[in-house]
Amino acid sequence: MGSRGRKSTRSRDAVGVGIIGFGTIGSGVIRVLRDHAADVTRRMGFPVEVVRVADLDTRRDRGVKLKRGVLIKDARKLVQDPDVDVVVELVGGIEPAGSFLREAIAAGKCVVTANKALLSGSGPVLARAAENAGVTLGFEASVGGGIPIMRVLREALAGDRNLEVYGIVNGTANYILSRMTEGKGDFAEVLAEAQAMGLAETDPTYDVDGIDSLHKLVILVAMAFGKRIDPRAVHVEGIRRIAAADIAYAREFGYTIKLLAAARYTDSGIEARVHPSMVPNTHLLSQVSGPFNAICLRGRALGTSIYYGQGAGMMPTATAVVADILDAARAIRTSVDACVPPYGINAKDLGAARILPMDRTSHEHYIRFQLADRPGVLAKISSVLAKEGISIATVSQHEAARRGSIPVVMRTHRAKESALRRALARIQELDDSRANPVVIRVEERLGQEVDA
Amino acid sequence: MGSRGRKSTRSRDAVGVGIIGFGTIGSGVIRVLRDHAADVTRRMGFPVEVVRVADLDTRRDRGVKLKRGVLIKDARKLVQDPDVDVVVELVGGIEPAGSFLREAIAAGKCVVTANKALLSGSGPVLARAAENAGVTLGFEASVGGGIPIMRVLREALAGDRNLEVYGIVNGTANYILSRMTEGKGDFAEVLAEAQAMGLAETDPTYDVDGIDSLHKLVILVAMAFGKRIDPRAVHVEGIRRIAAADIAYAREFGYTIKLLAAARYTDSGIEARVHPSMVPNTHLLSQVSGPFNAICLRGRALGTSIYYGQGAGMMPTATAVVADILDAARAIRTSVDACVPPYGINAKDLGAARILPMDRTSHEHYIRFQLADRPGVLAKISSVLAKEGISIATVSQHEAARRGSIPVVMRTHRAKESALRRALARIQELDDSRANPVVIRVEERLGQEVDA
Repeated sequence: MGSRGRKSTRSRDAVGVGIIGFGTIGSGVIRVLRDHAADVTRRMGFPVEVVRVADLDTRRDRGVKLKRGVLIKDARKLVQDPDVDVVVELVGGIEPAGSFLREAIAAGKCVVTANKALLSGSGPVLARAAENAGVTLGFEASVGGGIPIMRVLREALAGDRNLEVYGIVNGTANYILSRMTEGKGDFAEVLAEAQAMGLAETDPTYDVDGIDSLHKLVILVAMAFGKRIDPRAVHVEGIRRIAAADIAYAREFGYTIKLLAAARYTDSGIEARVHPSMVPNTHLLSQVSGPFNAICLRGRALGTSIYYGQGAGMMPTATAVVADILDAARAIRTSVDACVPPYGINAKDLGAARILPMDRTSHEHYIRFQLADRPGVLAKISSVLAKEGISIATVSQHEAARRGSIPVVMRTHRAKESALRRALARIQELDDSRANPVVIRVEERLGQEVDA
Repeated sequence: MGSRGRKSTRSRDAVGVGIIGFGTIGSGVIRVLRDHAADVTRRMGFPVEVVRVADLDTRRDRGVKLKRGVLIKDARKLVQDPDVDVVVELVGGIEPAGSFLREAIAAGKCVVTANKALLSGSGPVLARAAENAGVTLGFEASVGGGIPIMRVLREALAGDRNLEVYGIVNGTANYILSRMTEGKGDFAEVLAEAQAMGLAETDPTYDVDGIDSLHKLVILVAMAFGKRIDPRAVHVEGIRRIAAADIAYAREFGYTIKLLAAARYTDSGIEARVHPSMVPNTHLLSQVSGPFNAICLRGRALGTSIYYGQGAGMMPTATAVVADILDAARAIRTSVDACVPPYGINAKDLGAARILPMDRTSHEHYIRFQLADRPGVLAKISSVLAKEGISIATVSQHEAARRGSIPVVMRTHRAKESALRRALARIQELDDSRANPVVIRVEERLGQEVDA
């Protein structure tokens, strides 16, 4: 049966796919399904065909040919089209993307999305709706691009208990930090270069301020620990304040600066944080450069495992979307009950978890002060830190680069964030302070059991 | 219904698991299922219980308590026990392991195995039997221990076409090479240490001579390319001949020596090989040390992705076995038809592929000669190589360590293996040759498109 008056473009035995959003990823999905059509039919036992594509812009050339009548303007028509069995949402943003998905689920369609902003807020609600409607909800492409991390967490490690999940999940920020590490310029220069190459958006806020990493962390926490967390309760810092000097000090100490998203399961709550970190050069994460992503898991039985690959880009992301489409197609033809639920457990069992306040967590810190170049200033700083119980591991004071002002770089032993915050507030009040200090956490305990 | 006269130990709504082989992995599987019983029941909606364990030795204490009557001697009784829905084979070797699996499949039981030796020969035949019988066959634990690489290849990358698969798949060999790289001794010393620690077998042949890596490569090739290959046609070298000198030269040139298993899809056949390689220190594989494994994939759409984790050990391997058990349990309760077949495609479609003869492949080579210390010897060697069209990239001749004999180390540009073999044969015939030369391939093109 064709959609109201419109001719059906679907082969008789095919599962029909409708794609909302004919952008880069959408074009990639069409290409992957088309290039591998014979393989897919062989694997599945039936064809999987893109029968409808909806986009407000039906004129622009995307380098992908569609049959007459496939491309339409109205996403809602696509959702209701009886030829469409699987709805793929690739428009991004909260609305109308969320409505499209809810309507598709209500219409009994399986759904696939790569929308991490939407999922980080409404993922569990959407999953519950999908479970009640007996349809699948796939979001492999929402984290780690082509890295099949969702599938690994949902199925492969189902027999283990995850204790920690952390990694590099934003390719743009990682590209910028990698270029800075290679000495190709400071933050502003490298950002401009990334924008010119199409690796960063005109408004780079989501990527460089850690918001995109936060969305992905919320999804990872739900998958890894079976817990919902409130993104607003997570401590987030971006990479705008990282200077060439910090990169140089990191190298000197044997570290590489990376924007990490990290979560740890503890009995008193989940420790979750997004911020630039100094990663030891002996850790594989320090070697992950350019637009690549890597996600590390620590499981009680499995120990550490790492998943590395292209974090974004048309074809890697399209591959992840296609894997979800094929899962949906298989479920449609056999039994949705045989599928693991979207989050591995029933969405109603995804309990809300407390986030351990950042103030109560402890870390080693790198701190770069800019101080007045006069006698006694180091003593004053050290005494403030000592009063808060923060013990200094190393300190190095260099010659004045700017007149009257000297950089002082310290590494602290493990100290409570609350103590550090109080000390820094006091130091900034001193008339010796010439700029806000830069604080970067030093990750000596990634992937290890930590005492509270 | 209990098994003939024996009391049933299975809860009423549970899926029953029978484990053949109560060794390290078997104990681990029992532990993981027991420790996470509540989680598993919550995830699955029903309990999954080990109801029978078969082992010839029913007396030894494995540190795992079993209910009375669970441990029996006769594996065939376990296979036929109506309480057993899933049969897990963990005895290893070809027979009787193969018979146990065939009988279980014939009895309509889902089966799980970690037996790479068996699978490298009979995997496709077993898969076909399982498909015909409508049961699952899981072998996640056969490659990469706790790394869920089978699942990734079978499902996550189903929309892509794999072009290359390579990596470090034997933890024992990697441990030995890592220790040698750290300067902890020569091959014999480090092997003895690994044996004392239980990391290497008394007879280390399988691990150090590349046989275990070969078995795993055959399984990876089937999963990645959908092709059966004959293990006997694959070029295999072990690590016994690697000397401290080679490790030192590798470091000097910026490489780390690793035992690689590598396969590449080409139009004229599959290039498949297992041998020690010099891996550039810029490649993540060079950082994989100790008993860890890492498997790299290159897909047409996905590009490079890497999967890293513990390659062996009780708990990591048990986690992989448990993931397969849970898949089987889900299939039993819903629909086996909803499962992706064991190799991703129907076993009958696993075509036999030609292995590209090693002689026809090309590589860069590191060669360490031990030559007579007399004038003109280097000229003679160079002229033999030149006659075979092998061009030398670098050469370094060091002072005589042994009286009358000097080490000469060369790096060649890319050359055909056949040419190299002919040249080496001629050089060994010269009366200047004091020992068989050591050849290690230099992997500058791993994960890259290569011209034929």
